[in-house]
Amino acid sequence: MATYKPINPKTDTLTLGLFGFGTVGKGLYDVLHSTPTLQSAIKKICIKNADKKRSIPAEHFTTDANALLYDDSIHVIVELIDDAQAAFAIVKTAMQQGKAVVSANKKMIAEHFEELLALQQEYQTPFLYEAACCASMPIVRNLEEYYDNDLLQSFRGIINGSTNFILTKIFEEQLEFNEALLLAQQLGFAESDPKLDIGGFDAANKLSILLAHSFGVIAKTDDFLFNGIENISLQDATVAKEKKYSIKLVANAKKLSNGKLASFVLPQFVTPKDDLYHVQNEFNAVTTESAFADKHFFKGKGAGAFPTASAVLSDISALRYNYRYEYKKIHHQTDTTISNDFYLNVFISVDDISKINKADFEWIEEWHNGFKYSWLSGVIHADKLFNSNWWKQPGVSLILNPDAVIETIEYKKISKRSLELAGVV
Amino acid sequence: MATYKPINPKTDTLTLGLFGFGTVGKGLYDVLHSTPTLQSAIKKICIKNADKKRSIPAEHFTTDANALLYDDSIHVIVELIDDAQAAFAIVKTAMQQGKAVVSANKKMIAEHFEELLALQQEYQTPFLYEAACCASMPIVRNLEEYYDNDLLQSFRGIINGSTNFILTKIFEEQLEFNEALLLAQQLGFAESDPKLDIGGFDAANKLSILLAHSFGVIAKTDDFLFNGIENISLQDATVAKEKKYSIKLVANAKKLSNGKLASFVLPQFVTPKDDLYHVQNEFNAVTTESAFADKHFFKGKGAGAFPTASAVLSDISALRYNYRYEYKKIHHQTDTTISNDFYLNVFISVDDISKINKADFEWIEEWHNGFKYSWLSGVIHADKLFNSNWWKQPGVSLILNPDAVIETIEYKKISKRSLELAGVV
Repeated sequence: MATYKPINPKTDTLTLGLFGFGTVGKGLYDVLHSTPTLQSAIKKICIKNADKKRSIPAEHFTTDANALLYDDSIHVIVELIDDAQAAFAIVKTAMQQGKAVVSANKKMIAEHFEELLALQQEYQTPFLYEAACCASMPIVRNLEEYYDNDLLQSFRGIINGSTNFILTKIFEEQLEFNEALLLAQQLGFAESDPKLDIGGFDAANKLSILLAHSFGVIAKTDDFLFNGIENISLQDATVAKEKKYSIKLVANAKKLSNGKLASFVLPQFVTPKDDLYHVQNEFNAVTTESAFADKHFFKGKGAGAFPTASAVLSDISALRYNYRYEYKKIHHQTDTTISNDFYLNVFISVDDISKINKADFEWIEEWHNGFKYSWLSGVIHADKLFNSNWWKQPGVSLILNPDAVIETIEYKKISKRSLELAGVV
Repeated sequence: MATYKPINPKTDTLTLGLFGFGTVGKGLYDVLHSTPTLQSAIKKICIKNADKKRSIPAEHFTTDANALLYDDSIHVIVELIDDAQAAFAIVKTAMQQGKAVVSANKKMIAEHFEELLALQQEYQTPFLYEAACCASMPIVRNLEEYYDNDLLQSFRGIINGSTNFILTKIFEEQLEFNEALLLAQQLGFAESDPKLDIGGFDAANKLSILLAHSFGVIAKTDDFLFNGIENISLQDATVAKEKKYSIKLVANAKKLSNGKLASFVLPQFVTPKDDLYHVQNEFNAVTTESAFADKHFFKGKGAGAFPTASAVLSDISALRYNYRYEYKKIHHQTDTTISNDFYLNVFISVDDISKINKADFEWIEEWHNGFKYSWLSGVIHADKLFNSNWWKQPGVSLILNPDAVIETIEYKKISKRSLELAGVV
């Protein structure tokens, strides 16, 4: 066990140990070689498979993790591997060895958030992960630093690049879901396991991290409602177009009037007036609303080797002046908790009407019956979605309507009884 | 003379001395009272006119600047007055007295940039001014911190809220320029001297500040080309609409292939594909392009009491952890200089053709002759605009075409001679 020594900005070179040499690792290597002013150098790169052909000489590599973790001349461990469990073990040992750590592993961070907080506290080592959320966009640092006093009311965002790329292609080029996914994979925008992206897990992991930095809430992905885009069909896109909407996978966090936080990741219809409407391909974007600063909108590339590497680089650079997250909101706003006590205005399409659990709805506003494609729009309590799975089964797609969150409802609209009488439910 | 004592974040309260109680000063007062977690309190407010009726009790005010500047219990001077010369005197004395300073005065900062740098160096006091550029948007800090190593290639932005509000109203509500200006003034979006906004001086001051934090260039507004929107007419808006464009006052900084920086503030036609097209009313926005992070887009309110006060608040909050600008790019990239050695593709409308100095053009691409409204599109060397004034006179409006910057030209288009032969020039 060693103690973390704050970095002296005047020190000649920051010595890095890199884990992983995939898309982002290679990107970082290239980027570092283009920015000599950073005065950082990779001493060694730890890889899993020594036999794989690499673009740089073999002497840069090792398969021995300890050769990096226990090398006192290495100040910073940069962790860019896929495997979340292995990544956590590396990060933990590195911090115990008094090394600063930079990681892009959202799954690892979301799953081990509390342990990672405790490790930072115990070993007083900085742990930075700007690249884990929205790649190149400086969203973690802005949430952490800039909105620390102003009263943040909500954020909404497109925080997964590959699903946004897929949705864009379904819309623009009338591709079917699987064709668009293949294209995303070919362009290197998808996680190695596509289920992480298209099932919404990646966006949920990122939301989990952003919740800590925006509202001081520590939540695992199990704690909130989320889904991906696997069931979004070309027909859904056609309906959206008719309504002049686009479909985006949107992460949400919104302070309710009871002080609790509505938090979820779901596909949503967005209107042309919504800044998120204009976010295309692998771009990510986040809108924030706060009491005084009002609305902010940030957009940037959310996937790709260089955009991700640039965020890793920015963290390495921040370590030079001993920057660390202070988790101000976790320490100051401990009372905020997630709640599913609100309603959502949803659109649901199905290949077979019997798949809809109509009894879950408060009311149904619109209903369209087709031969192999039917849909409805209605209001449902978030808790009913949280506690059921019928809306996630194949052939069913749930898309939020614009302005989906409803805090309290009044039964002045079409009552359930009138729908029953009309034979609709 | 006193020495600046770094602030202890555990200290109970940060004591502020406030200069100015106009829109932003009052906004800050209100905002501070809504964020008790900041643990900051205004001890005294220095105002010019003791007789003016104020919304809070008289005991908060003084007309004696020295009562704040020489009070050892005041850690931070917040300077929010209009008069740039008086503001500089206040800021200088405050820094000499070892006080941290927060200011929103872009004119004062742009005009005294080098002296302010030297004062920070000499007295080792933090001087923060996020509110001076784009109000609520954290643009100074993002340029300073986040793009420090990645190779920034350009930024473009709408950085004056009141001109953008005026242009929006001319477009949306077919208002004439003067009607739209009046509306902006009524809503408190315009500087007390509207000439600062509509003449482009305010945007130029902000560009001057942003150049230092983005490219490490210290430049006064005299050093680059700029103009405002005073001569933009409803007819120009009509032409723009026919071309499916909007008109925005855009600040630009772009690395040329010779390593020099093209830098200017001019009205521009923007297409719906351009993120700036969707920036309406008092909103500001900046797009950046960098080698690895690629394109980023930030949008937020660029005017108004609370958005500006929120940025001041954010600076006060940053002082609690002893944040200061490090001016990394000024120290690392001293070789970048501004150049006018490039061409611009411009649209010029006139009420009288004789006002156009046709000889200045490399070539003219389009020409429309009307009774009281004529226009042309053509290519002109930036230096010819920099060194002439004919295009600023009443009745002439110069608007950049989209993608206006041309680094080198080839005379394969219509030659000047052919235009002469055709009797156009």
